[in-house]
Amino acid sequence: MIIIGERINGMFKDIARAIKEKDAKVIQEWARKQEENGAHYLDINVGPSSPAPVEAMKWLVEVTQEVTDLPLCLDSTKYDAIEEGLKLCKRPAMINSVPAIQSKMERVFSMAAQYDAEVIGLAMSEEGIPKDADSRVALAAELVANAMAFDISPDRLYIDPLVLPCNVAQDHGPEVLRTLREIKLISDPSPKTVVGLSNVSQGTKNRELINRVFAVMAMSHGLDAGIVDACDDELMAAVATARILLNMDIYCDSYIDVFKKSNR
Amino acid sequence: MIIIGERINGMFKDIARAIKEKDAKVIQEWARKQEENGAHYLDINVGPSSPAPVEAMKWLVEVTQEVTDLPLCLDSTKYDAIEEGLKLCKRPAMINSVPAIQSKMERVFSMAAQYDAEVIGLAMSEEGIPKDADSRVALAAELVANAMAFDISPDRLYIDPLVLPCNVAQDHGPEVLRTLREIKLISDPSPKTVVGLSNVSQGTKNRELINRVFAVMAMSHGLDAGIVDACDDELMAAVATARILLNMDIYCDSYIDVFKKSNR
Repeated sequence: MIIIGERINGMFKDIARAIKEKDAKVIQEWARKQEENGAHYLDINVGPSSPAPVEAMKWLVEVTQEVTDLPLCLDSTKYDAIEEGLKLCKRPAMINSVPAIQSKMERVFSMAAQYDAEVIGLAMSEEGIPKDADSRVALAAELVANAMAFDISPDRLYIDPLVLPCNVAQDHGPEVLRTLREIKLISDPSPKTVVGLSNVSQGTKNRELINRVFAVMAMSHGLDAGIVDACDDELMAAVATARILLNMDIYCDSYIDVFKKSNR
Repeated sequence: MIIIGERINGMFKDIARAIKEKDAKVIQEWARKQEENGAHYLDINVGPSSPAPVEAMKWLVEVTQEVTDLPLCLDSTKYDAIEEGLKLCKRPAMINSVPAIQSKMERVFSMAAQYDAEVIGLAMSEEGIPKDADSRVALAAELVANAMAFDISPDRLYIDPLVLPCNVAQDHGPEVLRTLREIKLISDPSPKTVVGLSNVSQGTKNRELINRVFAVMAMSHGLDAGIVDACDDELMAAVATARILLNMDIYCDSYIDVFKKSNR
């Protein structure tokens, strides 16, 4: 699983404060910590209540890139903020995210083509998140078709089937797993898949346990990437173990450390 | 997942000694401990080096039943030992196990029909364990057909796809997961599935971690039962969590305790 570190997000109080006070050290410390713990990308999100999202995004991209060479995953519903961020990215980035809504797909895929960015596509439409796998897969196919219209290869697209908290939408769990398998049949090359892992445990007790059990189950159904807490050591150990059991890495006794240092 | 407690097995030194010295307390303590921790069946295995396996099996069945009402899973390659054990079982038991070999299937399925026992069928033949899922599924189909010839309904049969240690046969892992899914398509009702979980981590470091990651991945592909260490609390918590995420139990904050007490 490609690890997209979730921590540089204005939803967290320390990040919100750091953005407000332009305290680069807090951001840079999280960038380093996530990289050391095995993150392959860093999610960058100014948070829901940023008064100046474009400026905040630009600042976050700049200060993060001062300390890490990891590619960034620019996470916002404000596409102007993403575009200004993309202009500053030293390496091809990921855009997080676009739903299967025509006007938004056109905006995001044209931007992705221009800046050579990967894209996270959400299996949702104007009507919201579907309940069953078939409807999610249909939306994924729409995203793939629209990406291809902009000459974006399906394997540059990460479909997020959208996981809901297991204490409020338990019946979505098995549907999401089936969606992950069936998305792989849409095209050749297949689109990739991603989940925002922490959503599954929102509002529950045992959050970390629920996160890591869902992560390894999803990996066994083909999940390629996760926006996750890269500093959750037990999660990272579980992911490394799943990679061994799925024959993705060669077993050695120290496979957990090898995984963390691999940056694949 | 149906939890078949693995601990009463002469492979463990304390059990081998208890059998030799007819020390019922050791056996009964493990029976109680496994039941308290959520086991639904208890595996009973006299071990590979028992000089008198029939007598040992009879004694184990008797002393175990003195302290628990859990059904037993009689585990031996010596069918005479299993048959003598079955005669003493107060509740319908499970026979562990029979490979897809004609003479053995006849012996075991006729015994299962006579004693109303469930059966674990191994996806292996005279030629050993196949490498790929297709061959495993073909052997499973043979087991189902032979069971039905003895009027044993497929859902009284637990197919074990046979998991090998991930440090020596890593490529088997994904094949076993696919086998679990495809076995469900053989008949209606479907056969059930089971794995001897600890095999997957034999000879590795991080045995418990590897066991529980494989367990929840396998559950998400339809695994019904596991012969496992029921006293591994982290395994049991992971299994309970997988049941929540697969929408098999209703979420509540104390779902782990609820699972352990459920004896389903």
